[in-house]
Amino acid sequence: MTHPPLLLTPGPLTTDAAVREAMMEDWGSRDPAFIALTAELRARLLAVANAGDSHVAVPIQGSGTYALEAAAATLLGPDDTLLVLINGAYGERMATIARRLGRRVTVLRWAEHQPVDLGKVRARLAADPAITHVAAVHCETTTGLLNPLPEIAAAVAEAGRVLIVDAMSSFGALPLDAATLPAPVVLASSNKCLQGAPGIAFALVERALLAGCEGRSTSTALDLYAQWRGFEANGQWRFTPPVQVAAALVEALRGLEAEGGPAARLARYQANCDTLLAGAEALQLRLYLAPTLQAPIIATFHAPPAPFNFGRFYDALVRRGFVIYPGKLTEADTFRIGCIGAVMPGDMARLVEALGPALAEAR
Amino acid sequence: MTHPPLLLTPGPLTTDAAVREAMMEDWGSRDPAFIALTAELRARLLAVANAGDSHVAVPIQGSGTYALEAAAATLLGPDDTLLVLINGAYGERMATIARRLGRRVTVLRWAEHQPVDLGKVRARLAADPAITHVAAVHCETTTGLLNPLPEIAAAVAEAGRVLIVDAMSSFGALPLDAATLPAPVVLASSNKCLQGAPGIAFALVERALLAGCEGRSTSTALDLYAQWRGFEANGQWRFTPPVQVAAALVEALRGLEAEGGPAARLARYQANCDTLLAGAEALQLRLYLAPTLQAPIIATFHAPPAPFNFGRFYDALVRRGFVIYPGKLTEADTFRIGCIGAVMPGDMARLVEALGPALAEAR
Repeated sequence: MTHPPLLLTPGPLTTDAAVREAMMEDWGSRDPAFIALTAELRARLLAVANAGDSHVAVPIQGSGTYALEAAAATLLGPDDTLLVLINGAYGERMATIARRLGRRVTVLRWAEHQPVDLGKVRARLAADPAITHVAAVHCETTTGLLNPLPEIAAAVAEAGRVLIVDAMSSFGALPLDAATLPAPVVLASSNKCLQGAPGIAFALVERALLAGCEGRSTSTALDLYAQWRGFEANGQWRFTPPVQVAAALVEALRGLEAEGGPAARLARYQANCDTLLAGAEALQLRLYLAPTLQAPIIATFHAPPAPFNFGRFYDALVRRGFVIYPGKLTEADTFRIGCIGAVMPGDMARLVEALGPALAEAR
Repeated sequence: MTHPPLLLTPGPLTTDAAVREAMMEDWGSRDPAFIALTAELRARLLAVANAGDSHVAVPIQGSGTYALEAAAATLLGPDDTLLVLINGAYGERMATIARRLGRRVTVLRWAEHQPVDLGKVRARLAADPAITHVAAVHCETTTGLLNPLPEIAAAVAEAGRVLIVDAMSSFGALPLDAATLPAPVVLASSNKCLQGAPGIAFALVERALLAGCEGRSTSTALDLYAQWRGFEANGQWRFTPPVQVAAALVEALRGLEAEGGPAARLARYQANCDTLLAGAEALQLRLYLAPTLQAPIIATFHAPPAPFNFGRFYDALVRRGFVIYPGKLTEADTFRIGCIGAVMPGDMARLVEALGPALAEAR
């Protein structure tokens, strides 16, 4: 087995050595040096989305799910209704989180291989004036499906509702320009296309929107308003931040800029994905999604015809130095291989070479 | 300035190089190797408190505050009443968190330099049968005051109530033996006396108690029951864990065992604190607490007589390689110096040598 193995997962994923090296320092979380690092972190998060003074960046301790919950708790009032557009596990999770918090939730559902249908969204918004907010998943990590975010954002804005974008597995690679796209709320985390270590999630929220949300969250920890005001008051995190993860994320954001920004990163991920898909096709592995819906983030394949043992396949790839994603979320019998992280097309070519023998072992 | 500076804070603090080195690897969070690491983490957390099969260890992503909130959300029902014993900022925080969640809260307060008074606790428990749970802070990080935990635990158990111990700044050093102390709920985090990196908090909860708490938390992220059942189901974290922070914490727990366990660590911290207090006394710095109440975790000193500029004092120490804690929580004019972390009595002797010149510069 190659050690360390290359992670080909939706995150935590393979990071650059420079990102990991940034974790080798201890920081006083209320020391001026760390306050400066936090300011750089918040500014760089806004810059990735080309968001200027219109938005504020609110990092929070925890995983991406914490950002979803903090957004639901902070932005939705008791009289609001959230429409969640669901075509996978992460849309379902947002609905579950908001319902559990006691918020009013309604949903539109599509099959896991179908994108959000704009006509149905427009019709629902027109038919139900109680809906105040709409939650949409940019890239559904369940399958890697790319939802039509620009069209969704335009439809929601035209209807005068507030869009909450779960950009967890897209932020930093797939286009999301807050200067031109009406995206008042964007949620993501440190450890996917930003290629940082896991432990920090964040929300980019329109300043005027967040300013009206004081005291709404019943959570002390998951309160985007209070967290924002904390940063504004003294530049510090309200509660102990994961200082090494923050330092790693700043280094990762510097690396994203050095690579050429999200467009350059997307081009690399696309090359990774193209290499994977071509190799998979040659091995008669069938892509789960229609190719036009497949984002170059994580590719989902139908399991090969029986006999096929996923555990043996997974282990055979681990022995060859590749950790693919062992979790299955789709209803169909599938497996997934990530295209993101500090991974180059050459790495994907090596993976493709390993796939054939691994498939043979899995029979 | 010595680089990196030595952190003399209540955490994030100075870690061992081996702990930081443990963060240099990427882990697939659902890979068997990380599942094994998580199992070791949970077992080692229980072992530190000498808790056997009676308790379960539930780590959660986030800071210590997240563990306080998860405990309040999961363990307190709508008909329960929490009595919080308050003599500092962290007791206040627990009351704030529980109230914000809509739970019934009542408090007993003492001045910041006074320990919890057992007579008053017993009297309140006898007088108010509605009280179902009691929250107490083991070492109040506000001042470093050691509350009488064994006596509090006995009084609460005798009265048939459930004790929730905030052991944030004591766990891993000050004695807490779950086999002999009635401590059904113990909360702490990775980055204080365990000397890990920040980003993980945890609860040790009596198995039978937690088993009765299904569906009680309205938070998806901060739900100790669901998090526990998640670990039990497949050994995995429900949501993306901070894998590097987890690896660092496991390494830190191995280091705690290698040092000789909590008793040996406490002896080192006591030596650190003794060195600090002797040096401070020679410089006519007055300890804020009565010496018998001062835990060897973080020492609080009265600010010297005017003219004294804390900012200049802090900066003068930074230039000499020491980061003390810039936050002031007490009502009195004080400053604090931590005694915990990968810090030896020789480091404290160097600090003591630096204190005199730094005090001179601060005038």
